[in-house]
Amino acid sequence: MMDKPWDELSHLIEQAEPARVQDFLEQLSPTETARAISRISASDQGKLFAMLSPAEAADVIEDVSETQAADLIEEMPPQQAAAIIEELQSDLQADLLGELDEEDAEAILTRMDPEEAQEARQFLEYAPDTAGGIMVSELLCYRKDQTIGEVLADLQAHRETYADYHVQYIYVTDTRQRLAGVLRMHDLLFPSHSSLLSKVMIKTPLKVAVNANLEELSDFFEQHKLFGVPVVDAKGRLAGVVLPEAVEEATRKRSVSQFLGVSGIIGGEEFRTMPLLLRSGRRLSWLSINIVLNIVAASVIAIYQDTLSAVIALAIFLPMISDMSGCSGNQAVAVSMRELTLGLVRPNEVLRVWAKEASLGAINGLALGLLLGGVAFLYKGNPYLGLVVGGALAANTLVAVSLGGLLPLVLKRFKMDPALVSGPILTTVTDMCGFFFVLSFATAILPRLM
Amino acid sequence: MMDKPWDELSHLIEQAEPARVQDFLEQLSPTETARAISRISASDQGKLFAMLSPAEAADVIEDVSETQAADLIEEMPPQQAAAIIEELQSDLQADLLGELDEEDAEAILTRMDPEEAQEARQFLEYAPDTAGGIMVSELLCYRKDQTIGEVLADLQAHRETYADYHVQYIYVTDTRQRLAGVLRMHDLLFPSHSSLLSKVMIKTPLKVAVNANLEELSDFFEQHKLFGVPVVDAKGRLAGVVLPEAVEEATRKRSVSQFLGVSGIIGGEEFRTMPLLLRSGRRLSWLSINIVLNIVAASVIAIYQDTLSAVIALAIFLPMISDMSGCSGNQAVAVSMRELTLGLVRPNEVLRVWAKEASLGAINGLALGLLLGGVAFLYKGNPYLGLVVGGALAANTLVAVSLGGLLPLVLKRFKMDPALVSGPILTTVTDMCGFFFVLSFATAILPRLM
Repeated sequence: MMDKPWDELSHLIEQAEPARVQDFLEQLSPTETARAISRISASDQGKLFAMLSPAEAADVIEDVSETQAADLIEEMPPQQAAAIIEELQSDLQADLLGELDEEDAEAILTRMDPEEAQEARQFLEYAPDTAGGIMVSELLCYRKDQTIGEVLADLQAHRETYADYHVQYIYVTDTRQRLAGVLRMHDLLFPSHSSLLSKVMIKTPLKVAVNANLEELSDFFEQHKLFGVPVVDAKGRLAGVVLPEAVEEATRKRSVSQFLGVSGIIGGEEFRTMPLLLRSGRRLSWLSINIVLNIVAASVIAIYQDTLSAVIALAIFLPMISDMSGCSGNQAVAVSMRELTLGLVRPNEVLRVWAKEASLGAINGLALGLLLGGVAFLYKGNPYLGLVVGGALAANTLVAVSLGGLLPLVLKRFKMDPALVSGPILTTVTDMCGFFFVLSFATAILPRLM
Repeated sequence: MMDKPWDELSHLIEQAEPARVQDFLEQLSPTETARAISRISASDQGKLFAMLSPAEAADVIEDVSETQAADLIEEMPPQQAAAIIEELQSDLQADLLGELDEEDAEAILTRMDPEEAQEARQFLEYAPDTAGGIMVSELLCYRKDQTIGEVLADLQAHRETYADYHVQYIYVTDTRQRLAGVLRMHDLLFPSHSSLLSKVMIKTPLKVAVNANLEELSDFFEQHKLFGVPVVDAKGRLAGVVLPEAVEEATRKRSVSQFLGVSGIIGGEEFRTMPLLLRSGRRLSWLSINIVLNIVAASVIAIYQDTLSAVIALAIFLPMISDMSGCSGNQAVAVSMRELTLGLVRPNEVLRVWAKEASLGAINGLALGLLLGGVAFLYKGNPYLGLVVGGALAANTLVAVSLGGLLPLVLKRFKMDPALVSGPILTTVTDMCGFFFVLSFATAILPRLM
């Protein structure tokens, strides 16, 4: 085997040996597969998927991240994509189709088996962070007028198919597909084979609504140690099952997108295997908003140019005040976002958060102001310079920490994404205030500074 | 019921009515419980836990975040804490004891049931992000010389206890407690009751080592759709079971701590219910490192003071260049950290990442440089000012993006936490370089700028 698995993979693809390609992929772990696929050329990727059966291709698609999977699917002929998507679990089908352009998704859906396509369309309608968005439709479901014996026979007959199911309960529905009861596997062990399900099932099954959100689902699994919960639509019909690991995974995805959003990666994940101009353009779209905001903030400095030329030492402290206030504010943003996610604070508790952050901002402002003010004093031997710089940092830390704590709550209330919007607003406002404090304080006592 | 559940809770606690307190807590969801507990005073918290039975207290502890739980435990008499911790699942026991000071943990351990304490000590030794750190010891385990009938009888007899177990498989061990086989629940359905487990079990069970890391565990569950995997120690003895949702949860915790670290919240989570001085001190410890780094970076400006007083307009652009480069660099940091987490890039692939980021940095640097350079030109009508500002931003974007892409890889290689360390290093270096580029370019063509 060569040093790099993707070189080996490329080589096997070039030689057009589907069996060896398949053998090779099988011995890679999912992480290694994802890495190897991402490193081969787009034309090799195309050839590879043309070589694999839809089921084999689906295995590969499951190993790579959703963003990568969507990119791969988009490059395929719709017929081939449809065959592969049919092999995926229902929740992944919807996730992937949701990542595609509407047109591409439609082209694939029309080529899928009509029943599967209808289900996928149904799943696509649920919001991604709800029970409907993360449930699977692969579950064991029988009518209440069936017997234990019939269920056992069916389980035996379809062992292979059911072995792939993550769901461990047996759901019982009435004639209108409404959820009527549930059975655990071991409930099948003891009753006689001729018992009707309606007689042995648990008749008031726990369930969640299709529009239940992630917090509600987390709460559910904290309260009930179950392997899954049935999801019912508005009419009480069984729509799917949510597994506890799906809730954890969706919560994790949200943390990841928060982290990426705060760092200025917007519009979905970025991988270095994406085309350069796409990556560059997406990063620039965020940067160009920032540069405009920066220009707005710096205009405060332009207003006070005369003060600045009179006391050039101030120019050294402007970037420090801007940067330090940004740091203090970001800490408060992170704490608010975390408390919002955990449900420890509600978007309307503005006053409570403000009181908590303002007192902290005052203490930290004082500490940082004394430190930087001391440095400014020592630098020029002028106590008034120390006063201006230290006072400005102290005041601006108070502003930054208060604003940082409140922004996520306010943005959430106005249905905006705190991860994306908090940073730019915070930086702009604290820069403007910081520059204003330093330069207006300096202007006020200008003679003592010169 | 009053407006705020925590007021109601405080009220019931003051009235010393354990039954009503318990009833009240039971109707709250875990999120509501966490919120109510965090809002009542420390003395009420103490009274509350003194009122509840250890099992009831453990239910509350399970609802709050780990940081909060550790704070609550630390305030209790060790005897009481020990009784509550005994009621928790083994992985949560270890997580909580691990959050405490060693002394506090020891005081609790010595007061626990010796067998439970020994197990907890064992669990504490496993690193948190490994199979040993996230496994549970609550599992169904029988010897291979037992019969199906004995297992069924035991399952019936201990139904209540086992109902709390998340683990759905039956593990079979040999006389030395080494893992010998596994049975699924439905494997108990068909064989005769007198069959020995050794005859009906799957003899080559899938398993992982106690030191398997999160990536390996994620890979395992991607490859094998199972409800859990047995964990064996170096001698092949069954140590516990890892559930897929535990892997997702640990991965999510890592994303959260990355996000908090990048935002400057270090040393664990912060909640606004923590004491003000503790919160302030922890945030300051990170800020004070930053202020020192800021002073170092700004010293570059001090060196070029003469240039700055000659062309005061430059002072307006210094904070912008510092901020924009920081933004560009942070985007690259986020992409690298994400690719590292997904295993798409290895810490030694420095050259590959550099090539990818340098080309992107050149393009974005050019775009941003043209934009800001244009603004500088229009501001004073001096094309040379535009050239200096635009050129400096372009050059510094290239530096920031390259450095941002590489830092996480290099830090990871030296076993440092990229989430904590990347930001401060990146900002300091890009600030210094940015200031240097603007001011040295300006110095070089100073006559044309005046």
